Amino acid sequence: MTHSQLTQAILEKQSFLCIGLDVDLDKIPPHLLDEEDPIFAFNKAIIDATHHLAVAYKPNTAFYESYGLKGWHALERTINYLNKCHPEIFTIADAKRGDIGNTSSRYAKAFFDEMGFDSVTVAPYMGRDSVEPFLAFENKHTILLALTSNGGAYDFQTQQQEGEPLFQKVIETAMTYAHSERLMFVVGATKDSYLAQVRAIAPEAFLLVPGVGAQGGDLAAVCQHGMNHTVGLLVNSSRGIIYASNGHDFAQAAAQQAQILQQSMQAILVSRGMV
Amino acid sequence: MTHSQLTQAILEKQSFLCIGLDVDLDKIPPHLLDEEDPIFAFNKAIIDATHHLAVAYKPNTAFYESYGLKGWHALERTINYLNKCHPEIFTIADAKRGDIGNTSSRYAKAFFDEMGFDSVTVAPYMGRDSVEPFLAFENKHTILLALTSNGGAYDFQTQQQEGEPLFQKVIETAMTYAHSERLMFVVGATKDSYLAQVRAIAPEAFLLVPGVGAQGGDLAAVCQHGMNHTVGLLVNSSRGIIYASNGHDFAQAAAQQAQILQQSMQAILVSRGMV
Repeated sequence: MTHSQLTQAILEKQSFLCIGLDVDLDKIPPHLLDEEDPIFAFNKAIIDATHHLAVAYKPNTAFYESYGLKGWHALERTINYLNKCHPEIFTIADAKRGDIGNTSSRYAKAFFDEMGFDSVTVAPYMGRDSVEPFLAFENKHTILLALTSNGGAYDFQTQQQEGEPLFQKVIETAMTYAHSERLMFVVGATKDSYLAQVRAIAPEAFLLVPGVGAQGGDLAAVCQHGMNHTVGLLVNSSRGIIYASNGHDFAQAAAQQAQILQQSMQAILVSRGMV
Repeated sequence: MTHSQLTQAILEKQSFLCIGLDVDLDKIPPHLLDEEDPIFAFNKAIIDATHHLAVAYKPNTAFYESYGLKGWHALERTINYLNKCHPEIFTIADAKRGDIGNTSSRYAKAFFDEMGFDSVTVAPYMGRDSVEPFLAFENKHTILLALTSNGGAYDFQTQQQEGEPLFQKVIETAMTYAHSERLMFVVGATKDSYLAQVRAIAPEAFLLVPGVGAQGGDLAAVCQHGMNHTVGLLVNSSRGIIYASNGHDFAQAAAQQAQILQQSMQAILVSRGMV
C-alpha cells in the first residue's frame, strides 16, 4: 500500500484508527478457548466487527511468539485473512526488530515477503545498516521507534545527544538513509508535548501513535501537535478496544469502543475541514 | 545456568567459544535439502561435531523467522536438542527484543519459559521497563546490546550523550536496573578499542563478543582489552565455522575451524595462568 492510498483510506473512512491485536489467552472470552484456534477466532471476530471503523491493524508479535508454533500459525492466519478479505487495511507487524545488515534483511523478508505485512516496526539502536534493509522494499513501510509511550523512554530517548534529544537525532539521521521516504515514526501519545517537535522535523511522515486509552494518552492533544495537512497520523488503541468485554458480546463491545474513537476522529477531521 | 557454572564450563573446556547457528538454506550443503527438516539436520550435525569445543550456541532468530512456521519448528527442535543432549551448553536466543513492560514480559516468557533458552539478547532503546521483565527470571541472563559490531553502531551508540558515549551510558544505566547481576553485554570485536572502556565500567559482567572471523575482529585484541579475572568473555563466530564447507564434510570442516579458535583461546588462557 502506498502513502497516498493510506491517506485516501483515512479520508474515506473518516478514521485514522489502528487497532492493536495483542491477543492474551487469559483475557479473551473464555468460550473462545474451545475453538481449534482461539487466537485467530478472536482476531477474526474483532476484525469483522471493526474493519469499517479502522484503517490499520497492528498485531504485536510478542503475544504470538509467547504461544510458540500455535501463536505463529495464528499470526499467519490473521495476516492472510486481512490481506485476502480486507485488502484496503494497512497492516503493521509490531515486531521492533533490528540487526546487522544481512540479518535485518532476513527479518524484512520474513515480514514483508513471507507474511505480506505492509509495514514493520524497527528499533533504531543499531543504526543505518540495520534499518536500510527494511527500507529497500518498495511499497512497504518501516516504522522506526523514535519516542515510545513507556516510562523507560526517558532513560535514553529524551536525553541530549550532540545538543538534541536522542529521539530527534534518530529521526534526523534516519531521514538521511536510502529510501527514507518509506519511513514512518513511532511517537507515544503519552509524550504529546514532544509531538510538535517531531512534526517539525518530519513534516510529511506518518506517525504511529500508541498510548491513547489504557496508557493515558489524549486524542485531541495528539491531533493538535501531530496532525499534518494530509492527516499523517495512525492512532493505535489495543486493550481499550479488544478487551472491552470478555463475554459473548466481545466483538460488539469492541466495535462500540472503536466507534467512540472513530467519531472523535471524524469530529476533528470535520472541524479542520479535511473531510 | 548460573554465572559460575558458565565460568566452570569455560575453564573445563578451555574455550569461551560461542557458535552462531545462523542457518541459511542457500548456504548449507545441498544434500541436506532432501532431509525432512534441513535446518535442524544441519544444526544437529554442527552441534554433534563441535560441542566439545564450544561453551555456547547462539541461533539468531531472524534466520528462523524468515522460513515461517518450519523455521520456528526447527528452532524449537534445536533448543530442545541442546537442552536434552547437551545440558552443559549455554544457549543464547539472539533475538534483540525489547518492548513496553507487559509486552517484554511476553518475549521473556517465550524465550525463557516456553523455549528454555538460558539467555536472550535485548535492545536497550526503550529503557528500564523494557529490560527489567527479562531480568526478573532467575538463573536466566539478559544480554543487552551495548556496542554492536556493525557500521551503523557509529550512528548513535558511540555518539556523546550527557558527556559519554551512548553505549557507556546504556551500560551504566542498566546496572541500576533490578537484578542487574543477570546482565551481560554485547560488545563487537570490531570495536576492540572500546572494550577496555566497557570492562572498566562492568568489571564482572560477561561480554558477548560477535564479529571475530567473517566480520574482521581479532581474538588476541579482544582478550587483551576484554578479559577479566574469571575470563568473562563469550566470543562468537558464525559464518566462519558453520559454512567452512558446503560438501558432505561440512561438520568436520566446522569442527576444524572451531578447533582453531578453541586452541587460540586455550593458548591465551594458559599464557594468563587461568587453566
